Amino acid sequence: MKKIGIALLGSGRMAQVYGPKINAHPGLNLAVVFNPNLESAQAIVNQYGGKALGDLDATLANPNVDAVLIATPANTHLEYVLASAKAGKPTFCEKPLDQSLERAEQCIEVLKTYPVPFMLGFNRRFDPDIIALQKAVRSGELGQLSFLMSTSREPFPPPLSYLQSSGGYFVDATIHDIDLMCWISGERPIEVFATGSCLTDPAIGKLGDCDTAMTTLKMPSGCLVHINNSRQCSYGFDQRIEAFGEKGMLQTTNQRDENLIRWDESKTDAKAPLKHFFLERYDASFSNELDEFYQAITEARTPSCTVQDGRDALAIALACIRSHQTGVAVKLNWI
Amino acid sequence: MKKIGIALLGSGRMAQVYGPKINAHPGLNLAVVFNPNLESAQAIVNQYGGKALGDLDATLANPNVDAVLIATPANTHLEYVLASAKAGKPTFCEKPLDQSLERAEQCIEVLKTYPVPFMLGFNRRFDPDIIALQKAVRSGELGQLSFLMSTSREPFPPPLSYLQSSGGYFVDATIHDIDLMCWISGERPIEVFATGSCLTDPAIGKLGDCDTAMTTLKMPSGCLVHINNSRQCSYGFDQRIEAFGEKGMLQTTNQRDENLIRWDESKTDAKAPLKHFFLERYDASFSNELDEFYQAITEARTPSCTVQDGRDALAIALACIRSHQTGVAVKLNWI
Amino acid sequence: MKKIGIALLGSGRMAQVYGPKINAHPGLNLAVVFNPNLESAQAIVNQYGGKALGDLDATLANPNVDAVLIATPANTHLEYVLASAKAGKPTFCEKPLDQSLERAEQCIEVLKTYPVPFMLGFNRRFDPDIIALQKAVRSGELGQLSFLMSTSREPFPPPLSYLQSSGGYFVDATIHDIDLMCWISGERPIEVFATGSCLTDPAIGKLGDCDTAMTTLKMPSGCLVHINNSRQCSYGFDQRIEAFGEKGMLQTTNQRDENLIRWDESKTDAKAPLKHFFLERYDASFSNELDEFYQAITEARTPSCTVQDGRDALAIALACIRSHQTGVAVKLNWI
Amino acid sequence: MKKIGIALLGSGRMAQVYGPKINAHPGLNLAVVFNPNLESAQAIVNQYGGKALGDLDATLANPNVDAVLIATPANTHLEYVLASAKAGKPTFCEKPLDQSLERAEQCIEVLKTYPVPFMLGFNRRFDPDIIALQKAVRSGELGQLSFLMSTSREPFPPPLSYLQSSGGYFVDATIHDIDLMCWISGERPIEVFATGSCLTDPAIGKLGDCDTAMTTLKMPSGCLVHINNSRQCSYGFDQRIEAFGEKGMLQTTNQRDENLIRWDESKTDAKAPLKHFFLERYDASFSNELDEFYQAITEARTPSCTVQDGRDALAIALACIRSHQTGVAVKLNWI
Repeated sequence: MKKIGIALLGSGRMAQVYGPKINAHPGLNLAVVFNPNLESAQAIVNQYGGKALGDLDATLANPNVDAVLIATPANTHLEYVLASAKAGKPTFCEKPLDQSLERAEQCIEVLKTYPVPFMLGFNRRFDPDIIALQKAVRSGELGQLSFLMSTSREPFPPPLSYLQSSGGYFVDATIHDIDLMCWISGERPIEVFATGSCLTDPAIGKLGDCDTAMTTLKMPSGCLVHINNSRQCSYGFDQRIEAFGEKGMLQTTNQRDENLIRWDESKTDAKAPLKHFFLERYDASFSNELDEFYQAITEARTPSCTVQDGRDALAIALACIRSHQTGVAVKLNWI
Repeated sequence: MKKIGIALLGSGRMAQVYGPKINAHPGLNLAVVFNPNLESAQAIVNQYGGKALGDLDATLANPNVDAVLIATPANTHLEYVLASAKAGKPTFCEKPLDQSLERAEQCIEVLKTYPVPFMLGFNRRFDPDIIALQKAVRSGELGQLSFLMSTSREPFPPPLSYLQSSGGYFVDATIHDIDLMCWISGERPIEVFATGSCLTDPAIGKLGDCDTAMTTLKMPSGCLVHINNSRQCSYGFDQRIEAFGEKGMLQTTNQRDENLIRWDESKTDAKAPLKHFFLERYDASFSNELDEFYQAITEARTPSCTVQDGRDALAIALACIRSHQTGVAVKLNWI
Repeated sequence: MKKIGIALLGSGRMAQVYGPKINAHPGLNLAVVFNPNLESAQAIVNQYGGKALGDLDATLANPNVDAVLIATPANTHLEYVLASAKAGKPTFCEKPLDQSLERAEQCIEVLKTYPVPFMLGFNRRFDPDIIALQKAVRSGELGQLSFLMSTSREPFPPPLSYLQSSGGYFVDATIHDIDLMCWISGERPIEVFATGSCLTDPAIGKLGDCDTAMTTLKMPSGCLVHINNSRQCSYGFDQRIEAFGEKGMLQTTNQRDENLIRWDESKTDAKAPLKHFFLERYDASFSNELDEFYQAITEARTPSCTVQDGRDALAIALACIRSHQTGVAVKLNWI
Repeated sequence: MKKIGIALLGSGRMAQVYGPKINAHPGLNLAVVFNPNLESAQAIVNQYGGKALGDLDATLANPNVDAVLIATPANTHLEYVLASAKAGKPTFCEKPLDQSLERAEQCIEVLKTYPVPFMLGFNRRFDPDIIALQKAVRSGELGQLSFLMSTSREPFPPPLSYLQSSGGYFVDATIHDIDLMCWISGERPIEVFATGSCLTDPAIGKLGDCDTAMTTLKMPSGCLVHINNSRQCSYGFDQRIEAFGEKGMLQTTNQRDENLIRWDESKTDAKAPLKHFFLERYDASFSNELDEFYQAITEARTPSCTVQDGRDALAIALACIRSHQTGVAVKLNWI
């Protein structure tokens, strides 16, 4: 069977993630790597193959390009989604859709006009452990859900240059947890409260951002959601979800590169530090989301992570920012 | 050495807790059990000894009474604290001090006038595991504290009759977590946000109360505190504290009556359900707080859990109620 | 009710264990402490009360002595059991009964002639976790038992002076595991194989003893038993039992003085070192076995840990020594 | 780079394991599948490609065959090793080498005459967790090793037809643990004791075999090794190794397909049953051993798992059988 040729837009960190995974997928083929900075595109091509192009129109017109994967900086996502949709290409866009709600909603409208298969890269939905938890919760194993809690702590803060255009901690990072909490519970919050501190680097505070945050969501069913995020974590990338309901509790556990248990005069039953960061922890989820994109294209169906999901998570993350700034819980209405 | 004779005020559930523990303490002696309903007092005396009295003045004047332990319904605590203090007796009062901040503050004033040793029964501060965590945090083992999180879930809701005069979930239950979070961190919150749901019994909601609650406290250092409380928990009395800071994390674990690990065709590495409820889980802490009361009396020093601690926890719990009702984070000022 | 007056024979390490526990038991009273070295007996009396005596006949004739607890060096146990039985006193004897099988069997005969209530102090049978495991196994929860495994590792070797009269590692220490394995399974082995090494101190090897040992027992049902013992363990007193059968597995866990879980840059999910040694780990079991002795006396029944149990465990431990010396599995016949 | 063409001898269960893994390896290519029963070979070819051949000489002479992988029934291994070596092909042979020590030693001699790269498939040596444990032990992290313990329990017994030609439980299964214990400790035993029972199916006993076995090895350093094997395990494929030494302990843990932790009214902290059997548990190790074979060929070096390792493990397993039959520990001499 002919492989689906992918145009990879962007050649930065996320392109490094997707490049090898496109090649490893039996049905996908890295056809083109696009970057206005052609040298940068060429570097990815040198590693993973394909053809480097610096022109977007040429990229979309390339006969080997069947679909588009957008892994450019967040503030350019929308522009490329629109171009790809207009070119009629199935489009995969790294999260977030955009940092502006208005522009995210424009994107929804454009995709109604140019209805290509579109998938947003909330990769954590494709992690096997989180899938197992979601299925168990949605199957009713816990009965009525009371609490849904997400712990997400990164080993160290990103560079200030990254933070400056990140949209703030809630839009950059909490948005992952927000999407998961909605996806697992099957609900969108009616009330959002968030607060944050700057504890790791005063320079982050000077940007108006925080590095330590707690978010509370209230769901229509009465289920209460807690999210805690930290830009610094000494023992690795701490990722835990806890779902508590009338019949019991389900938890996902952390993952390590080494699984030995150590006992010595200072400690017992000890495990190794956690997997380093998101590339290591969510390696399988990045592969799985590419496969979902592939399956959706070949089955001519809508991929499971939609543009509406991206818009909704953004709306909630922006409400977090507003709540953090005002000290007031923000109400949300969903039609 | 002569034992310290205790007048136990009250003969309900908490009197059942303290009665046998007074007797088991080598330095304490149950001298009098007081209840205006003399029959009820007599029932405790029949079990644990002492003399049943229905008159408060006679109780405080009894020559065998050296100190007073108040285990009456919460809305009568203040009246008895005042009488005991005026009688010059070292006084131990079950939590909460009162449900009214004004009255709690009056109590502080009275105790300035009649400066007897006074101890408030925040028993969880005397749990060995929580003490170990508090010491580790305060020793600086974690560096700057980022998150302090408390999970406190009860097996089933109390009777509606109890709830009617309980002061609401935040004042009745969350106050324990609030006190611990302040005691462990050594800080009092500058901002309080709380929200709640009614998920177990609509009758609780009709009382204007909730049975499922999440509370966020922001400390002056920037440390963020999370508390989750549920009136229902299928697997027992779930009590966990997690402290996360720049250098690492510390957690307390749950306790069980049976400690076997079970493996069979449906599960592996499984443990038994948790200890049933607070009497079982905090059995040691009730003994330890009596011992702190005893030690403070014999060493003529202030017990470690003060009237101010009780007043402050109440002020925070009341702010939780206000926040829950208004959807706004409540600011707190501490002089 | 009148308390049962206990004559405590011996004033060494085990007397230090039993002295305070006799006093703490509501139905027992430390009446006499006996040691031919009267000064040593007096030291225990100074701590825990009673009357110091240096003469055995006077001890047994003392009007306050209702029962006898033998906590003398192992090689004197038998002499005192016989004297106590002849004096008609209910008798509790620390393990082992004796180091000679012939003498242990004489003891059985004497107790037939003077049938006083007799209890052997295999204290581990009275540990709550081990009781829970035994009950679960005997209830048939696991179906046919396939493996029964005991890990028992001490923090450091005893002094050579102790080892010289200990009867060897199998009789001194493995005997505890042997008794538990028989008690849990309800079987006595038909074949015994044991082997040992000397790894901690060559001086132990020069005594003809070992400090590292593995024992295999084959039970009549086909259940295979494994025991591993070490005189040295860097992380505390390691005590684990695993029972594996057709329907599943049951395990007991280790115990710690501090129960915090620690995460930092070098480790995750780590617990503290284990309880130091047997006094700390089996504290409750020593109290519980005294209570069994008390209950048996007041109920005029045979205590649950019999002289025959002591004789049988000794026979098996001696077979271990023989097997270790010859490299041959020793067959055992039980009538 | 040209891929190395593999002739896969055999088309049974193990061929099903290796077939897809050969194809998935970037440097290997399934060139020929050989089985005298050509239909059976064709079935594998239909699934994984290559060319089906029923003639051994034609197979070894096939121009696409660069190396040979022997996955035939155990009693034919030797014949094919010899033919492959004589044909000058790098040879990978599934364990065991043979069931006869004499024939295994003949094989060593033949490989001296025809010195092709030869690798024996003790796949568990290539499991990441076991590698980590081996490295830690060999680095001296534990100091002098005291105990090395292996638990290996299969979900259910193989068919009797398989058992009849398996060489017995010790040669068929314990041999894996034996090889690991030697490889981890870096020692070969000087004394072997083994015993077994038949508990799952009397028909296994009638074959003179057992389904429940315990093995003790004594190493020259004094380190004592324990192995327990069961043909039946209700909760999955139980695979645990524990290494205990003067400075501490290291353990490998079990693996599960689903990693959720479950709490409900009957259990807490519970995990799912274990991975089903060896194909699931050791999936990575089978890939890794193929890679070792590939690396050794391309680097023109001896693969890490040698014919001598296979001969030695067999000698120890045969000593287990002798010990089990005689009840005597068997001494082994290594030159």
